[in-house]
Amino acid sequence: MPRIAIDVLLKREILDPEGRAVEDALPGLGHDGVHGVRVGKHLEMEVDAQGEDLEAQVTAMCSGFLTNPVIESYVWRIIGDDERADV
Amino acid sequence: MPRIAIDVLLKREILDPEGRAVEDALPGLGHDGVHGVRVGKHLEMEVDAQGEDLEAQVTAMCSGFLTNPVIESYVWRIIGDDERADV
Repeated sequence: MPRIAIDVLLKREILDPEGRAVEDALPGLGHDGVHGVRVGKHLEMEVDAQGEDLEAQVTAMCSGFLTNPVIESYVWRIIGDDERADV
Repeated sequence: MPRIAIDVLLKREILDPEGRAVEDALPGLGHDGVHGVRVGKHLEMEVDAQGEDLEAQVTAMCSGFLTNPVIESYVWRIIGDDERADV
């Protein structure tokens, strides 16, 4: 069963206050030279589907439930065990 | 200036109530066969560093500010324009 990762961010033309807050805080913590910070959601899950069925199911889940397509956009990919963010 | 993506999730042994809520809601919305849902943070930013300096800076930002290393783990990668989650 493939494990997929979905990354969700506010669209570029939408102000991201959380990203701005992170960017503004970094220099005070000694991290200069960081720009364009955007903060959103990361989801990982196993989906019991393959190929076109998998793509159709992920698209339906994302556009109908996991994201707000008016203000958010997303990318998804199949990941291996070594790409999981949780250890 | 490289653009990087950071994915943050609760460690596997930590209960993820948001992931559980998503997983429990999906069948009622017609999405069966989805398991092991974990929900966390996705960040993208440009960092003015390369190679080992970039790795050192990302590690310092993640372990000291962007994540809670006690309960969260993360992966990061350099991304191209076509891999950005915001369009």
